[in-house]
Amino acid sequence: MTRAKQASGKQGTLIIIGGHEDHDGDKIILKEVASRIRNGKLVLATVASHEPEGYLEKYQASFAELGIGEVTELYVEDRVEASDAGKLQALDEVEAVFFSGGDQLRITSQIGGTPIFDRVKAIYEAGGTIAGTSAGASMMSDTMLVKGTSGASFRIGDVRMAPGLGLLSNVIIDQHFAERGRIGRLIGAVSQNPRELGIGIDEDTAIVVEGEQFRVIGSGAVYLVDAYGATHSDVAEADSRTTLSIHDLTLHVLSTGDKFDLVTRRPHRP
Amino acid sequence: MTRAKQASGKQGTLIIIGGHEDHDGDKIILKEVASRIRNGKLVLATVASHEPEGYLEKYQASFAELGIGEVTELYVEDRVEASDAGKLQALDEVEAVFFSGGDQLRITSQIGGTPIFDRVKAIYEAGGTIAGTSAGASMMSDTMLVKGTSGASFRIGDVRMAPGLGLLSNVIIDQHFAERGRIGRLIGAVSQNPRELGIGIDEDTAIVVEGEQFRVIGSGAVYLVDAYGATHSDVAEADSRTTLSIHDLTLHVLSTGDKFDLVTRRPHRP
Repeated sequence: MTRAKQASGKQGTLIIIGGHEDHDGDKIILKEVASRIRNGKLVLATVASHEPEGYLEKYQASFAELGIGEVTELYVEDRVEASDAGKLQALDEVEAVFFSGGDQLRITSQIGGTPIFDRVKAIYEAGGTIAGTSAGASMMSDTMLVKGTSGASFRIGDVRMAPGLGLLSNVIIDQHFAERGRIGRLIGAVSQNPRELGIGIDEDTAIVVEGEQFRVIGSGAVYLVDAYGATHSDVAEADSRTTLSIHDLTLHVLSTGDKFDLVTRRPHRP
Repeated sequence: MTRAKQASGKQGTLIIIGGHEDHDGDKIILKEVASRIRNGKLVLATVASHEPEGYLEKYQASFAELGIGEVTELYVEDRVEASDAGKLQALDEVEAVFFSGGDQLRITSQIGGTPIFDRVKAIYEAGGTIAGTSAGASMMSDTMLVKGTSGASFRIGDVRMAPGLGLLSNVIIDQHFAERGRIGRLIGAVSQNPRELGIGIDEDTAIVVEGEQFRVIGSGAVYLVDAYGATHSDVAEADSRTTLSIHDLTLHVLSTGDKFDLVTRRPHRP
């Protein structure tokens, strides 16, 4: 099983969260983000949201309890603003950016290819931390899941995908995973090209990606759907009303502490 | 991969339905049941339901359109009735019994071990057809799933099982599968003993079991969860608040026309 190497160069950490991370209890996921911030500064990118009111206050309160005193918001109304020098200043001397939830297409359509995205990527490549929850998780990959039916098996063609921000290659990420019954649509998405590994992340659960490995934190599970060895799939044959048939998927269910190697596609329990 | 043989002897057909089979359109699943009835008689066993009112009329109307003129109801209030000679008469000269939905524990607690169940089994072993939908599907196995969280990953201990009627061995059946997000609980159930193959059946979808094979009919998918080759599972180690970790499950997603061999545990597409 081969897999293209991640883009080379120095890299930081991706913290990819399935949505609804805990803000009231142990805050394990937010604590993981906070632990990587040395200068007390975090940028909360709320671009996924049409109406981000309330997000800033919520994250400010939670991160303040974790010793991060300066949480500032990055929001853009449109692509023009995403090139604005004033907006870019918000990212000066920043080591960590947290993308909140909403609509992943808003993130990519507003900041894809803009100076703001270049700056976010530069922070990551300089060893910084990029975190994202829900829509902010989905947009991490090269090709991202935009829409698909939850709580149903996959009907061929019943998924909508779009170019993501490409911080993590060769994966397709889905979130709110068990909670919304999304195994069908993730299987459907990866069946289209089994080079892509499906990663389904439950709420209050995250993967912490460093180099070619990730580990799982939080209270739920992470599902790895690997169609590489599939012996049969009719995704390219059947018509769009047909329910997908696919044989010999490998499935791993990981929980807190589990690690996974993105190159060998193997889990291990330390 | 070895698997105990099904109980030997002449056997009929099991039609195991994930719930909400179509009554208004092509009625593919009900048609499959009707096609196996030569004498025009079907017994509708509504024992899973606390209040089976309306079931009989609904099934009578649908089966009448499929040429089955005589659909009679079998309902028992308690175990005493399940030995009643009058009730038993309802099963005379019957080749097909259809178990409607409700609570699988009501089926097993009311008729398990009683003369009524012996008669049902005798019909099956004489080559007849036993169909069951929803609760009527779950009760087919030796050990059945009674309760477990839908729309969530499996927390160890978070599933309740009970002895089923044992018409099909070495499987655990779950229903309303994609619709209610039940992959987590089925994985949890089979992780306890990977000898059992997990079969998750969507609504308006069924498996037609004959001998050691089944084929899939209906509009949705059937998920086969095979934990036989699992390389890691903490089901026996972790405490009951922990989310299950299990590596290297094999998963097949079958749709209409797919077949599956219960002995070799292999799918094939004719």
